[in-house]
Amino acid sequence: MKRSFFRRLLLATALIVSGSSLSSTTSADEGMWLYNNLPLETLEKKYGFKPTAEWADHLMKSSVRFNSGGSGSFVSSNGLVLTNHHVASDVLFKLSTANNNLLEQGFLAKTTAEELKAPDLELNQLISIEDVTDRINAVVKDGMSPADASKARQAEMSRVEKEAGDKSGLRCDIVTLYGGARYHLYSYKKYTDVRLVWAPETKSAFFGGDADNFEYPRFCLDTTILRVYENNEPAKIEHYLKVDADGAAENELVFVSGHPGRTRRIYTVDALRYQRDQRLPKTLDLLRRKEVLLQQYGFGGDEQTRRARDEMFGIQNSRKAYTGMIGGLQNPSYIESKIQYEAEMQKKIAADPKLAKYADAWKKVAEVQAKRQALSHQDVTIRSGIFGIAQELVLMAAEDQKPSEERLREYRESNRESLLQQLYSPAPMYDDLERVQLADELARLAETRGGEDPLVLAALHGKGPRERAADLIAGTKLFDVEARKAVVAAGAKGIENSTDRLIQLAKTLDSEYRRLRKLTEELDEVERQAYAQITEARFALEGTSVYPDATFTLRLAFGPVQGYHVDGESIPYTTTLGGAFEHEESHGAKDPWILPESWKKAKDKLNPKTPLNFVCTADIIGGNSGSPVVNTKGELVGIIFDGNIQSLTADFYYSDEVGRAVSVHIAGLLESLDKIYGAKFIVDQMGK
Amino acid sequence: MKRSFFRRLLLATALIVSGSSLSSTTSADEGMWLYNNLPLETLEKKYGFKPTAEWADHLMKSSVRFNSGGSGSFVSSNGLVLTNHHVASDVLFKLSTANNNLLEQGFLAKTTAEELKAPDLELNQLISIEDVTDRINAVVKDGMSPADASKARQAEMSRVEKEAGDKSGLRCDIVTLYGGARYHLYSYKKYTDVRLVWAPETKSAFFGGDADNFEYPRFCLDTTILRVYENNEPAKIEHYLKVDADGAAENELVFVSGHPGRTRRIYTVDALRYQRDQRLPKTLDLLRRKEVLLQQYGFGGDEQTRRARDEMFGIQNSRKAYTGMIGGLQNPSYIESKIQYEAEMQKKIAADPKLAKYADAWKKVAEVQAKRQALSHQDVTIRSGIFGIAQELVLMAAEDQKPSEERLREYRESNRESLLQQLYSPAPMYDDLERVQLADELARLAETRGGEDPLVLAALHGKGPRERAADLIAGTKLFDVEARKAVVAAGAKGIENSTDRLIQLAKTLDSEYRRLRKLTEELDEVERQAYAQITEARFALEGTSVYPDATFTLRLAFGPVQGYHVDGESIPYTTTLGGAFEHEESHGAKDPWILPESWKKAKDKLNPKTPLNFVCTADIIGGNSGSPVVNTKGELVGIIFDGNIQSLTADFYYSDEVGRAVSVHIAGLLESLDKIYGAKFIVDQMGK
Repeated sequence: MKRSFFRRLLLATALIVSGSSLSSTTSADEGMWLYNNLPLETLEKKYGFKPTAEWADHLMKSSVRFNSGGSGSFVSSNGLVLTNHHVASDVLFKLSTANNNLLEQGFLAKTTAEELKAPDLELNQLISIEDVTDRINAVVKDGMSPADASKARQAEMSRVEKEAGDKSGLRCDIVTLYGGARYHLYSYKKYTDVRLVWAPETKSAFFGGDADNFEYPRFCLDTTILRVYENNEPAKIEHYLKVDADGAAENELVFVSGHPGRTRRIYTVDALRYQRDQRLPKTLDLLRRKEVLLQQYGFGGDEQTRRARDEMFGIQNSRKAYTGMIGGLQNPSYIESKIQYEAEMQKKIAADPKLAKYADAWKKVAEVQAKRQALSHQDVTIRSGIFGIAQELVLMAAEDQKPSEERLREYRESNRESLLQQLYSPAPMYDDLERVQLADELARLAETRGGEDPLVLAALHGKGPRERAADLIAGTKLFDVEARKAVVAAGAKGIENSTDRLIQLAKTLDSEYRRLRKLTEELDEVERQAYAQITEARFALEGTSVYPDATFTLRLAFGPVQGYHVDGESIPYTTTLGGAFEHEESHGAKDPWILPESWKKAKDKLNPKTPLNFVCTADIIGGNSGSPVVNTKGELVGIIFDGNIQSLTADFYYSDEVGRAVSVHIAGLLESLDKIYGAKFIVDQMGK
Repeated sequence: MKRSFFRRLLLATALIVSGSSLSSTTSADEGMWLYNNLPLETLEKKYGFKPTAEWADHLMKSSVRFNSGGSGSFVSSNGLVLTNHHVASDVLFKLSTANNNLLEQGFLAKTTAEELKAPDLELNQLISIEDVTDRINAVVKDGMSPADASKARQAEMSRVEKEAGDKSGLRCDIVTLYGGARYHLYSYKKYTDVRLVWAPETKSAFFGGDADNFEYPRFCLDTTILRVYENNEPAKIEHYLKVDADGAAENELVFVSGHPGRTRRIYTVDALRYQRDQRLPKTLDLLRRKEVLLQQYGFGGDEQTRRARDEMFGIQNSRKAYTGMIGGLQNPSYIESKIQYEAEMQKKIAADPKLAKYADAWKKVAEVQAKRQALSHQDVTIRSGIFGIAQELVLMAAEDQKPSEERLREYRESNRESLLQQLYSPAPMYDDLERVQLADELARLAETRGGEDPLVLAALHGKGPRERAADLIAGTKLFDVEARKAVVAAGAKGIENSTDRLIQLAKTLDSEYRRLRKLTEELDEVERQAYAQITEARFALEGTSVYPDATFTLRLAFGPVQGYHVDGESIPYTTTLGGAFEHEESHGAKDPWILPESWKKAKDKLNPKTPLNFVCTADIIGGNSGSPVVNTKGELVGIIFDGNIQSLTADFYYSDEVGRAVSVHIAGLLESLDKIYGAKFIVDQMGK
């Protein structure tokens, strides 16, 4: 559900921007590798380590995807799942109330009976990958327009997914890889009963707050433990990670198994220009707008601050990440190197008649960017949780009239269960917050399309954005889950006759929304096919041993645990529990550098030399949050939770000169669970 | 100086945007009236009060303009000047250091010897107004292009100003009124030795902070007292305000004499559309960008927060004001009424052959908007204090080669003293803050013009914005005032050979800056002339008893002291000192609702019923901050410091339904000076 738009943007950017692709150069420890195309040779050559098929299969099945936008792992036979606090914060937020703020206080279930069910969380465990490229491409006939080709492919993808799902009982998704050069069928076991076991206080998980975010050295216990259930019992898990209690050592080779959301390393020069000059600046304007909006809303009091907190974190996190990203693109030397690479490639293509058919792919990408730019002024997206529900109800009622494979993709049968879990989520929504956000979105709609655009006038209904938003919120019943169910039950007829003002607004915007979505999907298709051609050209020129751009599907990254040098300073690979206390003191123990009471009480019991965070060179990005870090024996040594500020260019290019992935060290987690949180019984379950 | 760009934008928007004009409808207590065209008839008819020429002349000469962007008044024969804390905060900031933060602690000079000289403040007292329209227009010959006409007018304006200045020894500025239908010569006595006498703590002056800003009821002691000096002695002031110690009573008619910065009430429908859909959204994006940037910078520590504080206030204040403004424009009913008004006017013009020559003025305004929009993508403005100094040095060296009347306007002889006072200001500048801001501005330049624009590449010099900004700051000596003087002394030759990196950057941008400035000034001229035509049409159809749009020159506004009703609630006209303590308690005494220690210590001595703030219906806008509020006897009853949130549409239209001007009540000021700040001796000087 669109409850918190910006979390998605943060942790699972793949869910928002389309057009995936593949890396332009592979060097050092670069790469987010497919489990069915691992860089075995590189690993053996560089590190003398060759993972066996069993090793990889076990790690794959021990890895967990959070559909809310992050990664995690199974760490016990009785269903314990380890992830980041900031991945689970969505759950913590939804389970909190004004008087019981789990984000602030943390949580510990002393018995399974005390574990709290997440309202709408779905976890996925990857079971198998199958290449279905030929079957998907077979439905495209010569001379089909891009729109028709896309439609044919979409329909075939829905059919393949449904067939596979019916046969296996698994969640089956087709993933478009290498910008459309390959289609792989991913089959997942789904867990929808997920319960909260333990979470630290935000003060410990996000120590240093927005100020320390993306900085290193770092001192965050950014972890949370959940448990999956089946049939109301802790699930029995076959594949889970053993624990190396000593954790990662300096220079040790480690692996990261997680779900990077999106990278754009194959992007052509024109696509990068569009990002640098148009898309990223606009995204940053939007993020800053929402950040200021939520800050203002938070002035209303502590409860308002709490209500906005989870979304605020996502926004600030994204804002900082995008700022780093655009800075990387604005460095002229980067685009310069891309221009050269592209020119050389086109020269090689021109020299080889067999490759002639790929020659105009770059031009197609450029054309798509120009069209996207034009479309951006017509955008009718309303980034509001409660409006999102209304819109989904309106779309679903219409889409359900069609055969599954002809529907907009999220309304296909095989996705219905996941969709309804979100739509009927009992997680609280706050009318005052929704009103403020909706008002801002109506203002933004007016700014995007112009204040007298007929659709804007229809949406505003003769009022200013603030007054209109107040009317809309007062005139909807959709805060009540039962009311949503009633609308679904009434179907298309119900939508037609609805007097709910938000549903009426969604109907007002419906045809334009559909028109723009259709145009956008056609552009996506053209761009995908262009990137598929570029990929084929690269396969021909450079070989197929390359990784595709990230797609919020499971990947393996690797690299040694290693510090770095910056501005003449040597940054050690690890920090310690004792260092956290020093870090607090050096900032005068002022917000956001205040450790929680629990830490202060336990201080004397703690071994201050216990490692807390560490860095390695593995290639990660948003969506990797919560990924297990394992050693060559496949044992858990850490949990990814961040990249340093120098790694923020990773969306476009990887560098291990000073860019690093930042993890919670397993030793720090175990020591804290035992000595700070009185949860030795959890430590005892882990790895067993 | 461009030390803090956003203060200007806030308090004296007139300094930034050109194109003034006149109101489209006059109703209720609307109007920012010229002192040489006061609404005597209206006042007599509605309030039975007819100001005498002496009354008006005395009030005019008791009024003070702060060239940093605000208003004030003389309140004693020995030079005391009363204004807002937020107008003087620029001075307080510049007089502060890491260990002596006047903004935080407040200030009190117990003797004149203890009074602190403001580094670069200029105050103006208006002495006379003369209509020079005919002389200015006489230089425009038939068939001149707009560019030539503008040039001829500019040159004549410089000549008139210089002649008048040489004759009177005063500062003489020509003000373009009614969008160019009238030119008036304003002659000011200048005060450049201004010293700080008393300021309260920000906690009291800005109680409730950004959260309460533009809200009402309000509880702010937003005042500061300065003193003007001549020949190193307190100046002897002939015209100063007497004080009505009881202050404003409910329903009493009051007058506001101050310097509203800019209104845009004459704007045509097309100009309003440009504001609503282009200009204001972009301005808000920029303000939010700078707000977030300074917040991030402030994470560096208390000292960083202090360094950014003054600019931050201006930015947050503007952001809130512009948000209200755009909300007003986005209400479809407002533009609807403007469309109708314009259509009717054009019908009348079409019906009267004598008015035919005005018919296409609206089309000209529309064309100008389209051209401004196109130019905005080429903007090379770098909003950085230290770069601003470099740019000014580069421009000055070149302009000084020309006769005074041919120079860019700020470099004319008659302005030299004011210019150098700013340029040689000893106020501190901080290299870390300047570096962060310059980096952001280089990034913004790249976003505006595209990352591979030749000028952008030249400005970035092969580096990313952050690295380049660090290089530039490390490679300039301009933080040192003596270095600036040396550059000025070396003249054009010095600029040519300079190795200062910021001067080199200013030279790189110089020709494009000049090209764009020329184009913009031509557009201004076309627009001004179009508005002059519209004004003549209105004079012909509606009479000449109307006020022109605000121009940061002295105006008189009026209206009764009156509460209002909003959302079914009755808001009383005044708040009290006791109410401030209640307001603190009702917000849990949390930041920003913490009264300073001085208030708590004095609480028992204070009369809690003393009025603190009050509202009236007078027509004000940014720039009016610090304006004296006087009764019909011309006695001081209050000091303007804000408008309520419902008044934020005042840039485009006035309404007294719920819109109100907010003042500090004189009784609250006197009681606080005496009982909280131990400054009875100041109270004793006031009005005497």
